Amino acid sequence: MQNSLELMKALSIASPSKIIMLVIDGLGGLPDASGKTELETAFTPNMNRLSETGNCGLVQTVAPGITPGSAPGHLGLFGYNPLTYTIGRGVLEALGMDFDLQPGDVAARGNFCTLDANGLICDRRAGRISSEKSSKLCQLLDNMEIDGVQVIVRTVKDHRLAVIFRGTDLSENISDADPQQTNVPLKEVIALTTSAERTARVVNLFLAEAQRRLAPHHPANMVLLRGFSSLPNFPVFSEIYKLRSAAIASYPMYRGLAKVVGMDILKTGLTLADELTTLEQNYAGYDFFFLHVKGADAAGEDGDFARKVAVIEEVDYHLPRLMELKPDVLLITGDHSTPASLSGHSWHPVPCILSAPNCRPDNIRKFSEASCRNGGLGHINATSLMWLAMAHGLKLTKFGA
Amino acid sequence: MQNSLELMKALSIASPSKIIMLVIDGLGGLPDASGKTELETAFTPNMNRLSETGNCGLVQTVAPGITPGSAPGHLGLFGYNPLTYTIGRGVLEALGMDFDLQPGDVAARGNFCTLDANGLICDRRAGRISSEKSSKLCQLLDNMEIDGVQVIVRTVKDHRLAVIFRGTDLSENISDADPQQTNVPLKEVIALTTSAERTARVVNLFLAEAQRRLAPHHPANMVLLRGFSSLPNFPVFSEIYKLRSAAIASYPMYRGLAKVVGMDILKTGLTLADELTTLEQNYAGYDFFFLHVKGADAAGEDGDFARKVAVIEEVDYHLPRLMELKPDVLLITGDHSTPASLSGHSWHPVPCILSAPNCRPDNIRKFSEASCRNGGLGHINATSLMWLAMAHGLKLTKFGA
Repeated sequence: MQNSLELMKALSIASPSKIIMLVIDGLGGLPDASGKTELETAFTPNMNRLSETGNCGLVQTVAPGITPGSAPGHLGLFGYNPLTYTIGRGVLEALGMDFDLQPGDVAARGNFCTLDANGLICDRRAGRISSEKSSKLCQLLDNMEIDGVQVIVRTVKDHRLAVIFRGTDLSENISDADPQQTNVPLKEVIALTTSAERTARVVNLFLAEAQRRLAPHHPANMVLLRGFSSLPNFPVFSEIYKLRSAAIASYPMYRGLAKVVGMDILKTGLTLADELTTLEQNYAGYDFFFLHVKGADAAGEDGDFARKVAVIEEVDYHLPRLMELKPDVLLITGDHSTPASLSGHSWHPVPCILSAPNCRPDNIRKFSEASCRNGGLGHINATSLMWLAMAHGLKLTKFGA
Repeated sequence: MQNSLELMKALSIASPSKIIMLVIDGLGGLPDASGKTELETAFTPNMNRLSETGNCGLVQTVAPGITPGSAPGHLGLFGYNPLTYTIGRGVLEALGMDFDLQPGDVAARGNFCTLDANGLICDRRAGRISSEKSSKLCQLLDNMEIDGVQVIVRTVKDHRLAVIFRGTDLSENISDADPQQTNVPLKEVIALTTSAERTARVVNLFLAEAQRRLAPHHPANMVLLRGFSSLPNFPVFSEIYKLRSAAIASYPMYRGLAKVVGMDILKTGLTLADELTTLEQNYAGYDFFFLHVKGADAAGEDGDFARKVAVIEEVDYHLPRLMELKPDVLLITGDHSTPASLSGHSWHPVPCILSAPNCRPDNIRKFSEASCRNGGLGHINATSLMWLAMAHGLKLTKFGA
């Protein structure tokens, strides 16, 4: 049970020490023509000072070569093996739009699509209709009641929507309606277990009614649904680590992921300054804070090296406010790399600082991908970070006598 | 399912990018009196240049402390966990002699041995008879037909031979006839499952007939058989990675190992120059090439430090031909270490370069055991190499959303 949640639960003790995990989404990068990565280019005097007293390392989120999505990226940082603890696509879609998903709800992600005269899918994205159009069509489908099941339909963006089935005894064990190809009809939704038969019937009835209502709205004359899933029943973060834990995140997806593991979600604003104010105001009430900064990933995804540098510099600029709280353990890392040169998430390991008074110094004086390669933490898996944070916070008892 | 073949199959995508895996057999070494290993002694300007732009690391083939044979060494590099995916000794003996083993064949490795007047084994190697003698005696035993089973007998080297049983419904689940000690009689071959009873009977009948035919040929008056095995049914390399894959190897064993995982085997000559010609001629037709260089291991096994240095220098000298093909990903490593000072395979991790345009630079300027210790790949398992090669070739989709 190496680094398992059961072992952690057995060793963890409640104590007053405080841990802050600052996740700079997509932190890791690749060099531009100058030979320096985004982090290496940024002016980061505060992070550099932290790296002098703390320990640096390179973090593998899932496994070598694997490019993580946001969900596995964060679950790894929270100590949950992302290959074991997976979250369905429908649930992620609902979390990403701040929908208050309840246990037992079955969520699906969907597209508006176009059916031709023969009922075959000819465009899986209905000509990428606008969010405005999509929003109106979602209203047309929203709030049906089918066999005692409420069907909630929400627009996500452009042609994308989320559909949530709410009722008793629903099951996520049903097949997709979306064949994920064109020139074929929709697939009938099939129950994959006997207890899912009613859910499959309800979904098929919903789809038939949706087709009737959307018929006059070519090109968006049908919806495709896939990734039916319910909130997973993961071990609870606060029980594993014996931490009163809170999440501070401007973006809904990250609040959602923290909620899935049972953290308290603190209301906050859109900027890092807002998030820090929320941290300060709630500092006394919790032992663990997950603080999320989205901008670096967004800039990386846009291929904007300079903006990613600027986001990292902004984080560094605000760090003294966080340091003034004197957390016992401060972790700064990312959930994955998002090099501007690749305009997307990547598999490259992520730089990390762990700062605590009882770190063994590692002679690193700058926070960068290059320096972290030789840091005291070594090359470690993301699931080890919470263990190290707990240890440096003196929140773990000895293993064995 | 960390780094499992199932996960790889789920994430891999076919794409035009090309990967070359150059395996310098037994590459890793130990220092001589000068304090430098074979690789560190060799003049390797081309590999050094690759290490500047690529990533270096140290590769553990099986696990710390384990000295791998050729089969686990290569299976690890191909991404198959060598502790899970094993190949029987009989099959390896057949592969090593370029025998065209068919699915369903049962192969055994064997020795000519000496029985004394009481029928007890007094020399397990029949005085190490010559290959020439052995070859003649194998002809004496070859091509019997027993109960519809064809028995093929081939000399390997000196007193060693391989015996292949070919027929329908044969089973590898039978015990060894070789007791692996002297002053005892041969063991009767026993079926380990009921479906293997016919095979055991056929093998025992073959052994009785062999004893009759060999009686006048003291000291080689009997054969010992062990390691009965059939070609394993491994997941197919090209299906896991969605790569059109080919092996280029002068030595039969390595062609055989590539064949076991389903690679195409390209006809080639005996030298590295021949192998490179084969690579050039077939470059357009494949996405993945496994290129094998035997000489370094052979020199290490012979305890010949200088010859191992020379083989490494020869590989380096020819590298520009390979580089001119501009592979998207080039991996250079070994299947294990073979230090000349130990005259055999060893457990020491193997230096590795991964060169690709999207590598994160790691400031290494020389390809050596010492520099690889601090390389960007870190200390990794052999099974991670294909993951990293696939990632750098942009052949893997994101894990999770």
